[in-house]
Amino acid sequence: MASEEDFKFQSFVSERAKQRKPHNFWSNVPKVNNPHPNPIQLIGGLPNYQFFPVDSIDVHLRNEPFSNNDEKLFTLNSVSPDNDNIIDIKTALQYSEVSGINPLLNQIKQFVKRVPRPITNNWDVVCTLGGSDGIGKTFDILINPGDCVLFEEFTFTPVIGLLKERGGIPIPIKIENILENSIVDYATELENLLKNWSTLKPNLPKPKVLYTIPNGHNPLGLAQSIEHKKKIYKLAETYNFIILEDEPYSYLNFDKYNDPNTNFNLTNDEFINSLNPSYKTIDVSDRVIRVETFSKIFAPGMRLGFIVAHPKFIPYYNSSAALFTRSPNGYSQIFLNNTIIQLGGIEGWIKWIIKVRNEYLKRKNVYVTSLINSKAYEKGYLNPIDPNCGMFVPIIVNVKNHKNFNGENFDELMDQFYIKAVQSGVLVVLGRNMTVDNKLSASRSNFIRTAICYVDSHDILKEAVSRLNEATINFFEDTY
Amino acid sequence: MASEEDFKFQSFVSERAKQRKPHNFWSNVPKVNNPHPNPIQLIGGLPNYQFFPVDSIDVHLRNEPFSNNDEKLFTLNSVSPDNDNIIDIKTALQYSEVSGINPLLNQIKQFVKRVPRPITNNWDVVCTLGGSDGIGKTFDILINPGDCVLFEEFTFTPVIGLLKERGGIPIPIKIENILENSIVDYATELENLLKNWSTLKPNLPKPKVLYTIPNGHNPLGLAQSIEHKKKIYKLAETYNFIILEDEPYSYLNFDKYNDPNTNFNLTNDEFINSLNPSYKTIDVSDRVIRVETFSKIFAPGMRLGFIVAHPKFIPYYNSSAALFTRSPNGYSQIFLNNTIIQLGGIEGWIKWIIKVRNEYLKRKNVYVTSLINSKAYEKGYLNPIDPNCGMFVPIIVNVKNHKNFNGENFDELMDQFYIKAVQSGVLVVLGRNMTVDNKLSASRSNFIRTAICYVDSHDILKEAVSRLNEATINFFEDTY
Repeated sequence: MASEEDFKFQSFVSERAKQRKPHNFWSNVPKVNNPHPNPIQLIGGLPNYQFFPVDSIDVHLRNEPFSNNDEKLFTLNSVSPDNDNIIDIKTALQYSEVSGINPLLNQIKQFVKRVPRPITNNWDVVCTLGGSDGIGKTFDILINPGDCVLFEEFTFTPVIGLLKERGGIPIPIKIENILENSIVDYATELENLLKNWSTLKPNLPKPKVLYTIPNGHNPLGLAQSIEHKKKIYKLAETYNFIILEDEPYSYLNFDKYNDPNTNFNLTNDEFINSLNPSYKTIDVSDRVIRVETFSKIFAPGMRLGFIVAHPKFIPYYNSSAALFTRSPNGYSQIFLNNTIIQLGGIEGWIKWIIKVRNEYLKRKNVYVTSLINSKAYEKGYLNPIDPNCGMFVPIIVNVKNHKNFNGENFDELMDQFYIKAVQSGVLVVLGRNMTVDNKLSASRSNFIRTAICYVDSHDILKEAVSRLNEATINFFEDTY
Repeated sequence: MASEEDFKFQSFVSERAKQRKPHNFWSNVPKVNNPHPNPIQLIGGLPNYQFFPVDSIDVHLRNEPFSNNDEKLFTLNSVSPDNDNIIDIKTALQYSEVSGINPLLNQIKQFVKRVPRPITNNWDVVCTLGGSDGIGKTFDILINPGDCVLFEEFTFTPVIGLLKERGGIPIPIKIENILENSIVDYATELENLLKNWSTLKPNLPKPKVLYTIPNGHNPLGLAQSIEHKKKIYKLAETYNFIILEDEPYSYLNFDKYNDPNTNFNLTNDEFINSLNPSYKTIDVSDRVIRVETFSKIFAPGMRLGFIVAHPKFIPYYNSSAALFTRSPNGYSQIFLNNTIIQLGGIEGWIKWIIKVRNEYLKRKNVYVTSLINSKAYEKGYLNPIDPNCGMFVPIIVNVKNHKNFNGENFDELMDQFYIKAVQSGVLVVLGRNMTVDNKLSASRSNFIRTAICYVDSHDILKEAVSRLNEATINFFEDTY
C-alpha cells in the first residue's frame, strides 16, 4: 500500500517517468541459497582497470584564482590507500552508479548540510551532468505534455527548450520595475495570476512547477530576499506547486559596489551567514528541488552538478539518467572529490569558493564603479544595476530619453544600440533575447546583459566600460 | 529548396527532432556593419580559465595493459604552446561545442579514415557520451512513436529501453543455430521477415532501422562476415532501412583459441587488415550509422564515444545533445586527445589498441582452452563458443542432456544451473535475460554469457573454469 506521502510525491511524477522499466539483464535471476562467499565476477563487460592507459595523475592546484603558484600538488592513483573518502582511478574510470560515486556523494551531502542547510531531513542528493542536465531531468520526471511551469519573465532561455521538449508550457510572471528598484518582488503579481488562473489562463491546468533563479538571476543579476521567498513559498503551499531553484551563482554573493565594510577575509561561518538563504531553509513540505552545478566554482567542462530533492524523487532521476546520460564522467568526480580532500575537506572547499567569490566581487566593483563614473551614466543614458550575486551586470539603456523614441520602438532602438556597441568593440546580450515572451516583456527589455567572468583582467573591464560609454554617447547623440 | 538528397535523409528524421528550435539568446541579434576588430567579450557566462582550481596535470601512462612501468609522462597545461593538435586545460574545462572539441574531432576523423574506412566521403563524426548515448541519440533523432526497429533476437537489452523511451517497437530476428555453428547468418530469416512483413507484422510499419552488433556480439561473442554484411546491406537497400552498427568491441578481434599462427606482433596494417570490415566499407548509399565508444579501449568512466554518420544527420545529433547531454566532458577529451598525441598520433594510438587486443586474445585463449579441457566439456554438458571478437564467451548448457529435461523446461533448468554456478562461486549472465522476446527465444536461451574482461589475472579465469566445471557436474549429475 502506498502511504499518504507516496501519493503526494507520486502526484507530481510524469507518466513518462512512471512507466519506465529498468532493463537489468544481470539482476533478473533466481534467488540463491548459500552463495559462494568469494565469487568470481564474470558478469559485466567492465574492463579491468589495468586495461586503462592512465596509471596515475599528478594534479597541480592553484592557490587562488589567477595565481599559478601551484604548491598544492597531489596524485590520483590507480588504487587508493585505505581511505574511504578518496576515489581512485580504478573506480573513477570504471562504469559507476548513475547517481554518482559514493565518496563524492558523501562530500556533497556534507556540503548541503553545511551551506544551503535544508530545514527538514527529507532530502537526498544525486549527481548530474551540470545545471542544465539537472533542470532537464527535473522536467523529464515531472512534466507531462500540457503541464504548466511558471518562469520569471526574464530567464535563462535555453531552459524553456528543455521544458518544451517534454511538452510543458512556460508561463511568464511579470516583474515590473525590478531593475529600476533593484529588488525582486513578484509575489503579488504571482498571487494575482494564481488567484485568477482560470480567467487568465483558460484551458490550462494549474501550474505544477515554478522555475526560479533566486541568486544572481540570469539575466537580472539580482537576488531574492528571504522575505520574498517566504511569500512565494506560501503560494507554493496554497496552490500546490514545486519550486525548482536553479542556483549556479548563489555562492558568488556581493556587497554594494561602494560598501565601505566589504570584507575580503570572511571566515567560513561569516561567508555562509552572508548568503541569501535557500528556499530549502524554509521548505517544510519538501517541495523545493535545488539544482547546483560545479561549472562556476570549479569549471564548466567538468559537466558535473547535483540535485537536492525529496528521496522519493531520486529513483526517477536515476532512471532518467540511465536512459539519457548514464553516470557523470569519472574524471570530474575524482578530480573534484580528491581536490576537496586535498584542500582539507568541505571547510577547505568553502575557502576555495570564498576566493572565487572575492575575485568576482572585485571585478563587479571595478566594473560597476567605472560605469557609475562614465559620462553615459552622468548624462542619464545608461543605468547599471549593481548585482547582489553572480556574474552578470544588467545595464538599462534609457531609450525613453532617445530623440527617436516613439513610445513603442524599444526593439528598434535597442537594435541600434547593439550595433553601436559591437562597432565600439563590446559584445553583449540583448535583454529581449532572455524573455519567455518577448511581446509581453517588450517595454522592460531595454537593457543589456553584460558578463564580467570571461575577460582576463580588471583593466579589460575598464576598457569595456570606456567602449560602452563611447557607443552609448554615439547612440544618443548621433542621428542614425 | 530541398534537394533530392535532403529529402532522402529527411525522411528518416523523427518529427521530434525536426521540430526542435535552438534557443540561442546570444545569436538573435541585428547584423552589424564594420564591427570592431578586437571586441571585448561580455556575452557568455564563461568563467575565465584562471578561476579553475586545476592549473596543470601530469599524466603517467602505462606502457601496456597490466604494466605500471609508466615511462610515458606528459603534462596537460592551462594554456598550450603553438600546437593546434593539443588541447589545453583552458579549452577543455571551458564550455565547448556539443559535437566535441576540434583537435579531438580531427583525430577521430583520421582514425575513421584509417581503420573503419567508409567507402564514400559522405560522412562526418560527432562525439557522444559513450556507446549507449550514441544509440539513444540515434533513436531520438530517427524514431517516431510506432516506428519499428529490427534487432538480433539476442542483444544488449538496455538498448531496447532506449528505443521504447522514444516509442519505438523492437522486432527480433530469429537466428537459429547461431551458437551451434559459430556463424552469424540471419540474412534468409530477415529476408523472409521483410518479404512477408504485412502478413507477419500486420498493422506495423516497415522497419526503419536495423540495430546490429556486428563484432563480438553481445551476448553471442560472434562476428559477421563481410559476405553476411553484403546480404544484409542489400536488404537495407531494397527495403530502405538504416543500419545502426554498434561497435564497442570491434578492435578486440580474435583468432581461434588453438590457432598456431596467432601473431602478437601485428603491424598496424596487419591489424587493420585482420579486422572484419565495417558496414561502412560497403555503404554506397550512406545509410549506415556507426557508433563507437572509448569505454573498452580507454576506459568506461570517460563517458566518451563517437558516431560516424551522413553529414545531414549531424545537426540533429547536435540539437539532441543540446537538450539531453550538452558537451562531452572536457577531461575525457583532453586526456584522450593528448594521450593520442603523446603516443605518436593515430598510428601510436592503434599500437595501444593492438596491445589491449593482445591481452584480451590471451585471456580468451586461456579461458576457452580451460573450458575445452574440462570434464564438463568432455562429458558433453557444456559447449563454449570460441568468440571472434570482444569480451564475452557464451557457453551453451546442454540442458537437453539433463535427466529432467521435458522438452520445454529450459528456463527451469537454466535457473537450477545458475544456482549451482553461484554456489560454486561464479557469477554469470543468463542468456534468456538478453533476449528481445524471451518466449520467442526460449529454446535457444540455454546458454550463459561470461565476461573475461574484469578479473585480475589469467589464473582467476582458470579458477573460474574449475568452478564452472564443478557447478556443471553437480547440475547434471545430482538430483535436485
